[in-house]
Amino acid sequence: MLEDKNFSKTPIASLGEFGLIDRLIEPFTIKNESSENSIGDDCAIINPLGKKIVISTDFLTEGVHFNLGYVPLKHLGYKSVVVNISDIAAMNATPTQILVSIAVSNRFPVEALEEIYAGIKLACDRYSIDLVGGDTASSNAGLVINITAIGLANDEEIVKRAGAKVNDLVVVTGDLGAAYLGLQILEREHSVFLANPNMQPEMEGYDYILERQLKPEARTDVKKSLEDLGITPTSMIDISDGLASEILHVSKQSKVGFRIYEDRIPMDSLTVTTAEELNLNPIVCAMNGGEDYELLMTVSPNDFEKIKNHPDFTIIGHVVDEQQGNFLVLKGSQELSQITAQGWNVFGD
Amino acid sequence: MLEDKNFSKTPIASLGEFGLIDRLIEPFTIKNESSENSIGDDCAIINPLGKKIVISTDFLTEGVHFNLGYVPLKHLGYKSVVVNISDIAAMNATPTQILVSIAVSNRFPVEALEEIYAGIKLACDRYSIDLVGGDTASSNAGLVINITAIGLANDEEIVKRAGAKVNDLVVVTGDLGAAYLGLQILEREHSVFLANPNMQPEMEGYDYILERQLKPEARTDVKKSLEDLGITPTSMIDISDGLASEILHVSKQSKVGFRIYEDRIPMDSLTVTTAEELNLNPIVCAMNGGEDYELLMTVSPNDFEKIKNHPDFTIIGHVVDEQQGNFLVLKGSQELSQITAQGWNVFGD
Repeated sequence: MLEDKNFSKTPIASLGEFGLIDRLIEPFTIKNESSENSIGDDCAIINPLGKKIVISTDFLTEGVHFNLGYVPLKHLGYKSVVVNISDIAAMNATPTQILVSIAVSNRFPVEALEEIYAGIKLACDRYSIDLVGGDTASSNAGLVINITAIGLANDEEIVKRAGAKVNDLVVVTGDLGAAYLGLQILEREHSVFLANPNMQPEMEGYDYILERQLKPEARTDVKKSLEDLGITPTSMIDISDGLASEILHVSKQSKVGFRIYEDRIPMDSLTVTTAEELNLNPIVCAMNGGEDYELLMTVSPNDFEKIKNHPDFTIIGHVVDEQQGNFLVLKGSQELSQITAQGWNVFGD
Repeated sequence: MLEDKNFSKTPIASLGEFGLIDRLIEPFTIKNESSENSIGDDCAIINPLGKKIVISTDFLTEGVHFNLGYVPLKHLGYKSVVVNISDIAAMNATPTQILVSIAVSNRFPVEALEEIYAGIKLACDRYSIDLVGGDTASSNAGLVINITAIGLANDEEIVKRAGAKVNDLVVVTGDLGAAYLGLQILEREHSVFLANPNMQPEMEGYDYILERQLKPEARTDVKKSLEDLGITPTSMIDISDGLASEILHVSKQSKVGFRIYEDRIPMDSLTVTTAEELNLNPIVCAMNGGEDYELLMTVSPNDFEKIKNHPDFTIIGHVVDEQQGNFLVLKGSQELSQITAQGWNVFGD
């Protein structure tokens, strides 16, 4: 893919590590009062302004989390930021800073790194966050990106995975399963391309699910929506590994069980029709697909009237006692199917 | 090296990502009041306790920053933490938390990761810091470690790279060049081993420089020493890439020049004799070798009486006007040699 782009090919070694960093960070500006010291010192300095700090870090490795055969570098940079600040949103905090570390082999020209940083800058601008630190390193193998994201919140605003109570409502934002089906389409067309490079990829009509895969957004807007509704969730987590896996995390941390209703799980119509086209069960895609970066939360049953008509929140079930376990209530019956972790196991075969 | 150790060989895939994390973090305990929420949520939560937060992140990649042929995994884990909290010490802050991300290929058994984490735990215990987050990921290539270190400091305690003033004294802690010579010995013996695996490595008598390379320490103790002396440096940086490179960083950020006296640069006698044995100039090793993790600082000339007799601080020069540039004053003459950045260029050939 690097070959397609008509990049200039400035070797990284021609700039040196510090010249490279200067060139990559030049377009970034500081937007948050809390970012006191940025790149150019041993550490960034963050002024917490009386709030607490939440912090999360994630690796993205070539061939495991992304395939440069069909993921454009700018999208990769954007998505790397989004998946991290999604964790900040899941704490009901506001993302404020990121630190970006990238390890690449010498086969990457400076211009390829600039594409990644252009995507990172887009995300920083879209979400009003500051790039305040990081590292660039050489790697003997593929591209590896590590992003650390920082957010601020008042103590009473922070929502953890632990906190769900029996009888709470289970709520998700947006719709699920689309990102996974977008990946299936990308992989299908990539296989076709590898078999016959003259074939045109058939991407038309798949816009929504492709965008959900290639350019996901973090639900940093949900904090404001919840404030407007006067709701503080009792627990919250972002849906990165699939709804099933996240349900089990909250179950474990909150020591409760879940009843999720199959017919309540929100899916876009394109998600459903694409799943059927590929002979996949749409519910399995929503439960186990992952990468939707929507939020799963539990709210008090007293908040039912406040949330029931909000177009962006869907009530998909309720919380039960831990002994009752985690089950999906199947459509058109009262039959129960146990929820098991089939989220991405990055070390599996 | 993995073959030598008689590890049990539990495949990572047999635990799954979450089982692996549970197993790796099990031995860690929380020591700091500021660590409010640790592993097991979307984010760690840090209570800044009215202080400012300093934060730094570093990559260590196999074959570039370390060679598993001669670096034991436990030492690697220890050193990964030390190099990061050295950045915190360089801000005159107290390290409090780390986030550790590790990407490995499936060829690594769980027990190898446990060795790395045993080293990380040793460092956490030694420096009273908490492991509060991280990520484990699969990598198609070698081992990659990314550590983010967090520290706290009162606003007035923080010392940046910018701040050195004309006539300030230039001070370093400890001694320089030893870690680089330790690396030369390790590489020499590794080459001998590769040529003839039956040869016994000749490591005897090199203990100090080998330890400086394999098990460096971060100068977190210096903050206390400076407090006891009643000194706040005007600028500070840690010596990770060699004295020359760090001088140039402070020069750039503080907009000043430096005069460093060759005969004042502190070196251990083993560093000098080993350099001579290997036909290397000891001063070049101290100036450009790197990985000493000592601190370079500038202090007001008014502090001369306070610092001049302290056994751990050596005055090596003074600050001059920016136009006068950065020069080493050679021994036994007034001749000047320009200080240039020959620190590690990780992208160089």
